[in-house]
Amino acid sequence: MEFQEIIKQRYATKLFDGRPVPDAKVAELLELVRWAPSGLNIQPWKIKMVADAATKALLSVATFAEPQIETCSHLLVFCTDTDFAGLSEKLSRAMKARGIPDKIWDIVMGIAGEMAGMPPEDLRAWTSCQVYIAATYAILGAKALGLDSCPMTHFIPEEYSRILALPANLVPTLLCAIGYPADQPKPKWRYPVEDLLIA
Amino acid sequence: MEFQEIIKQRYATKLFDGRPVPDAKVAELLELVRWAPSGLNIQPWKIKMVADAATKALLSVATFAEPQIETCSHLLVFCTDTDFAGLSEKLSRAMKARGIPDKIWDIVMGIAGEMAGMPPEDLRAWTSCQVYIAATYAILGAKALGLDSCPMTHFIPEEYSRILALPANLVPTLLCAIGYPADQPKPKWRYPVEDLLIA
Repeated sequence: MEFQEIIKQRYATKLFDGRPVPDAKVAELLELVRWAPSGLNIQPWKIKMVADAATKALLSVATFAEPQIETCSHLLVFCTDTDFAGLSEKLSRAMKARGIPDKIWDIVMGIAGEMAGMPPEDLRAWTSCQVYIAATYAILGAKALGLDSCPMTHFIPEEYSRILALPANLVPTLLCAIGYPADQPKPKWRYPVEDLLIA
Repeated sequence: MEFQEIIKQRYATKLFDGRPVPDAKVAELLELVRWAPSGLNIQPWKIKMVADAATKALLSVATFAEPQIETCSHLLVFCTDTDFAGLSEKLSRAMKARGIPDKIWDIVMGIAGEMAGMPPEDLRAWTSCQVYIAATYAILGAKALGLDSCPMTHFIPEEYSRILALPANLVPTLLCAIGYPADQPKPKWRYPVEDLLIA
């Protein structure tokens, strides 16, 4: 599907029909998401996939009973890996293993070192923002693969962490419900392009 | 262009050839970016477009002399609007003007009201994250339109604010340089899909 068409057709699906998305299709989606870019190529994201009804029922309570949670096929819980030191070490090793030139390694790890000194809340915010790039790949990728999706941030992260038994460094940041729609898209609206620009 | 192809071909362009992107093409790109989704549809982004050489030269200094800044055609400075109260009021008025049903208005403005009570640093982080969705639309949209791009966060926001005389509520968050490439894409790498998932 053309990108312009994907953008037009994508909408935040409020109700899914409960049909399961085949595993092969889910794998295709993850393969698209995997290629999302991130600052330093640090890839500070992890996804918890939830497809079973019992877990969805628990998560629904932590999502103010929004109907997407229990009617979607798969709920992708995008988490931010807040262990910046661990991510940096992994990146360093991966670049070495791939034979990235020392000059590039020095620049990237130099910036990573600077960033490690940022105020923790700023570093955490930056890291979470990268996760949104991957989630944007997911919502656009879903449409490209003939699926619908709903990104959501109105949920209780602490409850998600508890229910999904997530390690402390992985913080639920954004949900992406995917599946087949049981609603109709409402007319989309945005502010005009003039509002987008700073004169 | 197919979405899968866009993802494959997109790369962080390190050097552009300086040719200007025609205004009509830039307008097409903004029209794609405009349709980015955001939580509550609050659209907390503004873009400062920089195409003149003198301003780029000043910004280059605040971007550690990365060659993208002076060689790109247009530098899109994506800013976060940190005036959440102002954004909420604008959203409220826009929904009323569009005849959005009261039931939906109540839900959306109820959540906006809750969010206004979040710790300011958390609200600011959430808002910045939405801006990344629009920036992701920009980098993918650029490729869809036959352009190349480079997203960048390694710059001095305070210097950008000063040079561009930005209002205090608009905080430079991420740059997207667009233009025609003068480099060759390096092989892209990412962690395997197993690393993406939480078991």
